Amino acid sequence: MDKENSPQTGDEILVTELLSIILAAGEGTRMKSSRPKVLHHVGGLPIVSHVVRAAREAGSTGIALVTGPKHASIRETVSLMDPDVVHFEQAVARGTGHAASMARELFSSASGYVAVVYGDHPLLRGANFQAVIERLDAGLDVAILGFEPVDPTGYGRFITDGERLLAIREHKDASEDERKIGLCNACILAFRAEVFRDLIDKIDTNNAQGEYYLTDLVSLANGAGKKVGYGIAPETDVMGVNDRSQLARAEAVFQVDRREAFMMAGVTLRDPESVWFSWDTEIGRDVTIFPNVVFGAGVKIADHAEIRAFCDIEDAVIGEGATIGPFARIRGGAELGADVHLGNFVEVKKSRIGAGTKAGHLSYLGDADIGQKTNIGAGTITCNYDGVNKDTTVIGDSAFIGSNTSLVAPVSIGDGAYTASGSVITENVPDGAVAFGRARQVNKPDYAPVLRDKALAKKAAKGK
Amino acid sequence: MDKENSPQTGDEILVTELLSIILAAGEGTRMKSSRPKVLHHVGGLPIVSHVVRAAREAGSTGIALVTGPKHASIRETVSLMDPDVVHFEQAVARGTGHAASMARELFSSASGYVAVVYGDHPLLRGANFQAVIERLDAGLDVAILGFEPVDPTGYGRFITDGERLLAIREHKDASEDERKIGLCNACILAFRAEVFRDLIDKIDTNNAQGEYYLTDLVSLANGAGKKVGYGIAPETDVMGVNDRSQLARAEAVFQVDRREAFMMAGVTLRDPESVWFSWDTEIGRDVTIFPNVVFGAGVKIADHAEIRAFCDIEDAVIGEGATIGPFARIRGGAELGADVHLGNFVEVKKSRIGAGTKAGHLSYLGDADIGQKTNIGAGTITCNYDGVNKDTTVIGDSAFIGSNTSLVAPVSIGDGAYTASGSVITENVPDGAVAFGRARQVNKPDYAPVLRDKALAKKAAKGK
Amino acid sequence: MDKENSPQTGDEILVTELLSIILAAGEGTRMKSSRPKVLHHVGGLPIVSHVVRAAREAGSTGIALVTGPKHASIRETVSLMDPDVVHFEQAVARGTGHAASMARELFSSASGYVAVVYGDHPLLRGANFQAVIERLDAGLDVAILGFEPVDPTGYGRFITDGERLLAIREHKDASEDERKIGLCNACILAFRAEVFRDLIDKIDTNNAQGEYYLTDLVSLANGAGKKVGYGIAPETDVMGVNDRSQLARAEAVFQVDRREAFMMAGVTLRDPESVWFSWDTEIGRDVTIFPNVVFGAGVKIADHAEIRAFCDIEDAVIGEGATIGPFARIRGGAELGADVHLGNFVEVKKSRIGAGTKAGHLSYLGDADIGQKTNIGAGTITCNYDGVNKDTTVIGDSAFIGSNTSLVAPVSIGDGAYTASGSVITENVPDGAVAFGRARQVNKPDYAPVLRDKALAKKAAKGK
Repeated sequence: MDKENSPQTGDEILVTELLSIILAAGEGTRMKSSRPKVLHHVGGLPIVSHVVRAAREAGSTGIALVTGPKHASIRETVSLMDPDVVHFEQAVARGTGHAASMARELFSSASGYVAVVYGDHPLLRGANFQAVIERLDAGLDVAILGFEPVDPTGYGRFITDGERLLAIREHKDASEDERKIGLCNACILAFRAEVFRDLIDKIDTNNAQGEYYLTDLVSLANGAGKKVGYGIAPETDVMGVNDRSQLARAEAVFQVDRREAFMMAGVTLRDPESVWFSWDTEIGRDVTIFPNVVFGAGVKIADHAEIRAFCDIEDAVIGEGATIGPFARIRGGAELGADVHLGNFVEVKKSRIGAGTKAGHLSYLGDADIGQKTNIGAGTITCNYDGVNKDTTVIGDSAFIGSNTSLVAPVSIGDGAYTASGSVITENVPDGAVAFGRARQVNKPDYAPVLRDKALAKKAAKGK
Repeated sequence: MDKENSPQTGDEILVTELLSIILAAGEGTRMKSSRPKVLHHVGGLPIVSHVVRAAREAGSTGIALVTGPKHASIRETVSLMDPDVVHFEQAVARGTGHAASMARELFSSASGYVAVVYGDHPLLRGANFQAVIERLDAGLDVAILGFEPVDPTGYGRFITDGERLLAIREHKDASEDERKIGLCNACILAFRAEVFRDLIDKIDTNNAQGEYYLTDLVSLANGAGKKVGYGIAPETDVMGVNDRSQLARAEAVFQVDRREAFMMAGVTLRDPESVWFSWDTEIGRDVTIFPNVVFGAGVKIADHAEIRAFCDIEDAVIGEGATIGPFARIRGGAELGADVHLGNFVEVKKSRIGAGTKAGHLSYLGDADIGQKTNIGAGTITCNYDGVNKDTTVIGDSAFIGSNTSLVAPVSIGDGAYTASGSVITENVPDGAVAFGRARQVNKPDYAPVLRDKALAKKAAKGK
Repeated sequence: MDKENSPQTGDEILVTELLSIILAAGEGTRMKSSRPKVLHHVGGLPIVSHVVRAAREAGSTGIALVTGPKHASIRETVSLMDPDVVHFEQAVARGTGHAASMARELFSSASGYVAVVYGDHPLLRGANFQAVIERLDAGLDVAILGFEPVDPTGYGRFITDGERLLAIREHKDASEDERKIGLCNACILAFRAEVFRDLIDKIDTNNAQGEYYLTDLVSLANGAGKKVGYGIAPETDVMGVNDRSQLARAEAVFQVDRREAFMMAGVTLRDPESVWFSWDTEIGRDVTIFPNVVFGAGVKIADHAEIRAFCDIEDAVIGEGATIGPFARIRGGAELGADVHLGNFVEVKKSRIGAGTKAGHLSYLGDADIGQKTNIGAGTITCNYDGVNKDTTVIGDSAFIGSNTSLVAPVSIGDGAYTASGSVITENVPDGAVAFGRARQVNKPDYAPVLRDKALAKKAAKGK
């Protein structure tokens, strides 16, 4: 009993074996999408991947994923992330009980615990699993994760007797009194493996929809004299996603959580609500982030960097003290050294930029390898694509690339070399050399009025 | 009576004639604007235009618009949108009753119903008209639209006896008990035409402001033994706009409504609160919109397109599967085919871009007609303006425009043609040709230190 | 007593001398920052500077700032802003009472009033000082600023007897009943100077932390038979900042206040929540600001200007009727004349731009002086930096800079002069002249397939 009064300590899981069966065979028709529901993203990661991560975080030794016949894309996505997940197909939609039974190959020989989890809950954490696992550790046979939603309408209600869970009553089957119950079914049902095995085939289809309901296991377990109880989760952890409005709400909760965590760790967010993180964003101390910054996957930012307004950054490492933006776009495995400065309307793609190098304005640096303390003039463009190949531009230390330079890759610019403004550079420039690749200027005196007259005549001709 | 208990069904309007008189003669001084209040925008459309649209949606067969003597701009705006609206001028501000009487030419011969509507309610819908029209259909002589504001302070209160509306009491004239009434006057007063005609000239100016108050018609009608009742509107539908803070709130409600509608129809909005729609935005299924996207008027987006962060799009058609942004600007009647990709810092104005064509970086494509599967290099600029004329750039299929190319219009680039990076193209390039328009590069060895010394000497000279 | 019932009128301060002692010696460890807490910004201004401004606004004739030994940066920041502030160092952290006593040099000879203020309250206003000053004016000896927080947990509670303030009880020392008190200690403690002088050295360290608590002055004053009362502040005025989450909340409150003030003054904010002002932003009437605009310090915008979406503007003056953006970046003391148009992906730095001049696309204008009615073509770049010096580009009136022109500074373009598209301009262009600085185009017929074959062969070679 003491144990039961200290839920979610999370550090004393007793069993060594936990099989998590994740159900992701649903159609998700309310998403109105050709993409399976659980492949929609929250924090840049597919919903189902969040659930797999939570299951692993909770110590799952085996994970089964049950998907539908059209769900090859789910299986591929999950396999790439976690190749040890075992896939099962539910060929015909006959309810959650039937779906869970598809994983028979795994649970038939399971010892320890079996947890069945709904796959459309992107904010699930390891701690939510632990809230029920601990109840099993404390002696229960069955433990179901519950929560107390602000509005319980639509959720299955927990029929309880003290700490015992007697049944889960679906909303539509609930009496008026039962609908007043605030404690509802969340998304994890956990069992001693042998209890799960004994009961899973006893579920029948005697209900309105003629389907096998997993939640019937609660009353079946009670009928078999088993000890059935529950754990509790915060509502924000167990939000399910059924349409795109709920998807947006889940994303919003995810972002609020990340923003708060970063601020408490010493990151300044001028306007937290306009900064969007990915699930894997890493940010150092005393980093300042201005309003309107979007992080895609794979970003690491070192201490004291400053990310100004209107930046879009993904797959990039940003060095200590770097100042980025406003209006910078970084992607494709970019690596920026310490004190690098990127200014406005600058894109860096798959490039390495050395410490102290600056590119302040209107530049595209793609497939470039740039040294330290080099100055990249406004309007510099690496011409890295010939229609077939992507070629590399190499620039040394302390070089000076004049404004509006076109660097036609493959090409290299030596240490301390200069390129003249407006040049097209097609050949390598040795260390310390200056490259010119531009035409000499000619002025035609008093010719502007002539040009203007021509233009006006053209306009007049058009008007006829 | 049954009828009265089922408001807003909206599909059984019995009369064939409805004259809507829209009042827009107010000064709107709290806007502190040189622009008339009802010409301020919500969802990219002037407030008064929203009201005209709602009146038409409700089946108005005639619409009268009453404006003030300085309101030529309102009359022009509305005429462009709906040339059948009949305009009346209220030369002197003598109250809403006086304003409505300006439309005498129309209502003197009207059969059916007359609805008087306040013109500063941008979120009004056809259904709000129907809520009172149905009451007239059900036998009432007068039906006023009411609502229950969260805070009724300032609104005229409905003095009722059951379903009968006895009077509208202005806030300042209301007793302490009357101020506790939550049901208030919204913005539509509907009448049988003959009742309106009989009573409109009986309004007097015996009140604090010495003005003709339209709301007096309620007690006048009761005095004449007419049947007077009311319909109900949600508060968000009948928000009036008197200052810019209320304008912003109306805009916010408008946006929340559009976002929710798009999400439920199968559009993913990563951060709904940072996506801004126009009243006429059309978006297909499975389109994904990232944070911070602003749509101006006239945008249609086909299925499966992806609009990345920080895009500003107006007057554009975007094809199926296109990927746009981040940081793209599209406008001026642009037409993008299927699978077009526009990347960062790219502007497209009044151009047609064929299927599968890509323009990834820092380009301006104006007045261009570009074929399919063509690659537009970084920094490409159509030089479309000679100071007087805007000329066209034509580019064929499967062409390759090298980075930093200047295309001096009028000019055409053939199918499969190439332009060399950094070229200025002033003459047509035939199919399959390669155009060079750049200077040859010359390296001056060891000259960079010389240049640097010169620059340092110049700096030193300045310092003197 | 009448006086006491009309707080915050703010126009009848009786004393001519007010010494404000601002306490800023705290460590601020919860900020997890290498920067002192009070140097973090709200509305673009350091927290402590907001407090100094409020103290001046309240009529402080002397201001003492108490900082810690590592706080040279605070002293420098404040001295730059207000050189009359007198600095004191608290060498060892021994509590707020000890900190205030550091300013002895000033208060030992002070007549009038002494106000001790916590330095980490960025939203403090002059009116908050006046709320307690007025109580002293009305005859009290000590007046403490209180507030009624939504959640009083953690705050010192006011133990009162009617209008008398008996003591301030710290949360941890409060009884269960005392914790139910909603009136709490804010951040200003005001005294008659002689009372402050008499009592400050009577504070002892008989408390849990062994520190000198300033709030002990309340019970000490009562013990000495002094008249002690309080004033009230709105909670939003007296938010303290202890971590970055609170910093973000203070910033949010600051922004809400500015947005509302601008809207009520006649500025349209389409989406107020996405527009970020600086403390010193000045905006004229009938200016329209689209979503997602960020203002840094030093911006003035004249009437009727339009700032479109995604602009980042600091240190700039924008003329009447100018249209800016979307995606414009302005900074460094830019001055834009009336009706100037800057379009997308345009940066203006430290430049003067004459009335009616347009720069619509993808340009960098740095250190430029540009006349009126000039057209700056897309992709124009001022090459203003030679690696050492920043040089100036001068452009006259009614000039036409062709697209993709590189202007190599120092250089000047005359009135009515043209530059040909794609030119590199290194020499001055006289009035009315046309400058060409580009290579002539050569087409190589049927060469594109050859180039493509070469590229494919290269790819094949790489694949080996």
